[in-house]
Amino acid sequence: MSKLKIALTKGRTEQQVVPLLEKSGIDCSGLRDKQRRLIFDEDENFEIILVKGQDVLTYLNNGTVQIGIVGSDILEEQGNYQYQMLDLNVGRCRFVLASGKNFDPSASKRKIIATKYPNITRNYFKRIGEDVEIIRIEGSVELAPITGLADAIVDIVETGTTLKENNLQIYAKLQPVNTRVVVNRLGLRQQKKQIYNFINQLQQANEKFSEVVK
Amino acid sequence: MSKLKIALTKGRTEQQVVPLLEKSGIDCSGLRDKQRRLIFDEDENFEIILVKGQDVLTYLNNGTVQIGIVGSDILEEQGNYQYQMLDLNVGRCRFVLASGKNFDPSASKRKIIATKYPNITRNYFKRIGEDVEIIRIEGSVELAPITGLADAIVDIVETGTTLKENNLQIYAKLQPVNTRVVVNRLGLRQQKKQIYNFINQLQQANEKFSEVVK
Repeated sequence: MSKLKIALTKGRTEQQVVPLLEKSGIDCSGLRDKQRRLIFDEDENFEIILVKGQDVLTYLNNGTVQIGIVGSDILEEQGNYQYQMLDLNVGRCRFVLASGKNFDPSASKRKIIATKYPNITRNYFKRIGEDVEIIRIEGSVELAPITGLADAIVDIVETGTTLKENNLQIYAKLQPVNTRVVVNRLGLRQQKKQIYNFINQLQQANEKFSEVVK
Repeated sequence: MSKLKIALTKGRTEQQVVPLLEKSGIDCSGLRDKQRRLIFDEDENFEIILVKGQDVLTYLNNGTVQIGIVGSDILEEQGNYQYQMLDLNVGRCRFVLASGKNFDPSASKRKIIATKYPNITRNYFKRIGEDVEIIRIEGSVELAPITGLADAIVDIVETGTTLKENNLQIYAKLQPVNTRVVVNRLGLRQQKKQIYNFINQLQQANEKFSEVVK
C-alpha cells in the first residue's frame, strides 16, 4: 500500500498543524528538527512535503499529493480546489479593509485598493456595489496606503500588530479565514479507506484540541 | 525640491546595493539598523522603500517612486519596464535548466517544467524549438522534480548549494542575471537633473566597487 502524501503549508500553518498530525498518530519527528528539509517520510503511512500556501493546490490538482492543508484565504482566492473535507480550529484570522486615518470609505471617487487577493477583493466590492481599481501586490501590502500607491488595502489580519505599527485602521471586516483539509478527487477514489481514516483521526484530534482551547 | 523616491528590492539585493548607495553619498543609516521598518527618509534628498522584487515595477509604473533597483530576472519576466539606466555589478547569478540525474533532456516525450518564471521558460523552449508544459510554482521550486510534479525546473542559481542539497544538476545554462536600475518615464521628465546626478554618482560608486572586486 503506497503512502498517503500530504502537502502542508510551510510556516505558521505548519507550526499549528503539526501537533494535530501528531495527535492523529503520524510521526512528525523530522518536522520538529527539520532545518532546510522539505520532504518528511519518517512515518510508515504518510509522506509530508512543506510548500508555500499558493503551491498547495498545484501539488494537489496535479496528483503529486492526495491531501492538502491550507488556509481558506488561498482556497477562496484560487477557487480551483476539489473536495474540502475538514475545517481545522487553527489559523484563524480575518480579511479586512484597512487604511490610514484620513481614508473616507464613503468618498465617491473611484478607489485604488492594493491586495495580495485580487479575486476576493473584486468579489467584496462587487457585493457592496462599488467599482474600484485593484493593484496586485506580492509583498508587504501595508506599504501601499502609506506610500500613496493605493487608497486602502484588503488583507488578512490575525493580531492587528502590523496594522498598528503602520498607523492603519480597520474600516470593514470581511470574511473569516481558517485552515482547511482538501483532497484530490482521483486520490479519494484510489485510496478511499486510507484517506477517510486519516480525516477521522485528524477530526478527533482537532475536537480534543478545541476542548483544550475552550 | 521634492525627494527622489527609490524602490529597492528587499533582501540580498538590498544588502549588496546599500554599500553602493552609501558610496554615492546617500544616508542609509536607517537601513543599517532597520528592524521591521520599510520606509527610510534619513537622507535629505532621497526616500527609500523596501519592497519585494515582484513589486518594484508596480511602485515604479504607478509613479509612487521614480527609481527602481531590481534584478534583470524580474524585468525580463514582467517585461513592462520603462527606462533601464544602469547595470550594477552585484546580484550576479544565472538561469539554468536543472533536474535529477535520471532526466534526459533529449527525450521526445513532452516535458513538464516547473518554474517561478513562466515567461522566461516559455521563451527559452520556444527558442530551442521544444514544446513543453509549464507549471508555475511560487515557493521552493527544487521540490518539483523530486516529488514528481515536474520533469525539470528553470530557476536562478547563484552558488548552486540548493541544487546540490537536492541532488539536482544543471542541464543547460540560460541567460545571466544581475541587478538593474530602472526609472519612471514621467519622473525622468520632471526630475531629470536629480535623476541623472543620482545615476552618475551610482555609476562611479559601481565602477570603484568593480575595481575592488577585480
